[in-house]
Amino acid sequence: MSDTHERVVVTEVGMRDGLQSIARTMPTEFKRRWIDAAYAAGVRHMEVASFVPAKLLPQMADADEIIAHALTYDDLIVTALVPNLKGAQRALDAGVHRIVAPVSVSAAHSLANVRKTPAEMIDAFAGMRDLIDSAAAQGARRVELIAGLSTVFGCTLQGAVPYADIAAIARDAVEAGADVIALGDTTGEATPRQVREIIELVRDVAGDTLRSLHFHDTRGLGLANTVIALQHGIREFDASLAGLGGCPHAPGATGNVNTEDLVFMLDSMGYDTGIDLTRLIASRDVLAEALPGEPLYGYLARAGLPKQFAAAGGRRLEPSLSQVLQ
Amino acid sequence: MSDTHERVVVTEVGMRDGLQSIARTMPTEFKRRWIDAAYAAGVRHMEVASFVPAKLLPQMADADEIIAHALTYDDLIVTALVPNLKGAQRALDAGVHRIVAPVSVSAAHSLANVRKTPAEMIDAFAGMRDLIDSAAAQGARRVELIAGLSTVFGCTLQGAVPYADIAAIARDAVEAGADVIALGDTTGEATPRQVREIIELVRDVAGDTLRSLHFHDTRGLGLANTVIALQHGIREFDASLAGLGGCPHAPGATGNVNTEDLVFMLDSMGYDTGIDLTRLIASRDVLAEALPGEPLYGYLARAGLPKQFAAAGGRRLEPSLSQVLQ
Repeated sequence: MSDTHERVVVTEVGMRDGLQSIARTMPTEFKRRWIDAAYAAGVRHMEVASFVPAKLLPQMADADEIIAHALTYDDLIVTALVPNLKGAQRALDAGVHRIVAPVSVSAAHSLANVRKTPAEMIDAFAGMRDLIDSAAAQGARRVELIAGLSTVFGCTLQGAVPYADIAAIARDAVEAGADVIALGDTTGEATPRQVREIIELVRDVAGDTLRSLHFHDTRGLGLANTVIALQHGIREFDASLAGLGGCPHAPGATGNVNTEDLVFMLDSMGYDTGIDLTRLIASRDVLAEALPGEPLYGYLARAGLPKQFAAAGGRRLEPSLSQVLQ
Repeated sequence: MSDTHERVVVTEVGMRDGLQSIARTMPTEFKRRWIDAAYAAGVRHMEVASFVPAKLLPQMADADEIIAHALTYDDLIVTALVPNLKGAQRALDAGVHRIVAPVSVSAAHSLANVRKTPAEMIDAFAGMRDLIDSAAAQGARRVELIAGLSTVFGCTLQGAVPYADIAAIARDAVEAGADVIALGDTTGEATPRQVREIIELVRDVAGDTLRSLHFHDTRGLGLANTVIALQHGIREFDASLAGLGGCPHAPGATGNVNTEDLVFMLDSMGYDTGIDLTRLIASRDVLAEALPGEPLYGYLARAGLPKQFAAAGGRRLEPSLSQVLQ
């Protein structure tokens, strides 16, 4: 835990992961307003779309428009998810800063998700690296390539993935040119002990390229897992506003960690997210208006900021232990 | 985190704290069944009643009966909460193993809760010590006396309580004869950084007498706070089945940490709680039957145990990191 206002990056992934997980389509205009509201709250990293065939995922048909809107903010880092080379080319053409490609460590999940074995997906990933490097050689801004290792903490199709396989695929992803390794708890099965073990495991082969964690909150351990990841040096986390896209109270639910609750915890621990909690909570109104009837989750939004916390302008002012003990 | 199956005590407090926080009264027969079901699941510590005037809290009018039932189990540690000397005498007469007396560190909360200042409550606490010691001198089993320091992590009436006051009251409680100091997040405002700081603070004056933590999950940080407390040597936690008594989704909610979710996390971290998760989840049926319409919370009960976890008889079998790295 830090008392030094160390920076932690929170990437809002609700516009991609959240929306992808609900049945309804959010109109483009509301997505724009969501980006505006998140930006106004201080969010500077957003995963706003995925480049997948529109007939498979109509929700993401407006990816180009949404990215163009996000890029109107100079200091907003814009990420898109892509499952293949074609998607990567579209993302490059759209002008994103970061591309995240899912690399499942479970063969069963990989085949079901992208119709490729993990090895084939690593090949595709290497192709994305070449694509980005070629574009950069021709003068384009160098896009960051993220290997989003999925089903790392368990796979509902295959069961637990052996640690040796996870390490091997992490190594392959680094060798294929990943700028960043992100670990994803796709199935919401991660536990604190696993988080420690798998961070140590992957760091051993990926070093500081391991940078980001993507937790779901299926079994209520999302923030506990985040604490462990913070203690093991991770400073980037994905989250969804209002936990959109997953119902923590339904069987098999797979909601992302809730952005407001995550930011509240980080703030309370002395980390600097740059995000204003009051504005972030207010930004839920866009979701309520865009998706009437869709459940919005989150403890903080219901319970409110503690009085002291709010009075201190978001960061609770406590006497530090050293002061007290003097 | 432990891989050594170190013991962690989970005290079910739903029969007291949970029921005290809902409007309805649970019939005595259902309370008995709840105790039976919790016992069958392996729970060996229960806070089953409080000794307060029945007209103030009709819910607890059957405290004697409930304690008598709990005491039919030889190896069940039975706790009652008492606010004053009279309550302590009733608890002793009933034959409990442990008495917990709330000692609020916030003067405003203490006056509102027990109509005593913290200093007056410490005096009452010393009186309880004398009462217990006199009974023991006359041959009675020595009852354990717990000072439940409340509003330690914030008070909705008074705001943050200065650390110096917390330390002073903890010291007073030890000097007044507390066998155990328990810290309570009465208002659901605890954060991981505070948990670390306040454990260090109180341990400095109370040593190993500081033993137990009582978290609420108002802002979703209950399990994250538990992780920090575990890392700082705490091995006893209170929790309520189905998070009874607090609605995490209503303003001002103050539900206890959910027993099932807590046990799942502890289990997954390699701690030994002695509790069978499948039976524990099944025991929610008693609540559903006794309190129709009352919301039952909890992530695990909705999402289910991960397949792997269930297949391993409750404890997920993962290759340990050392095996993998060999």
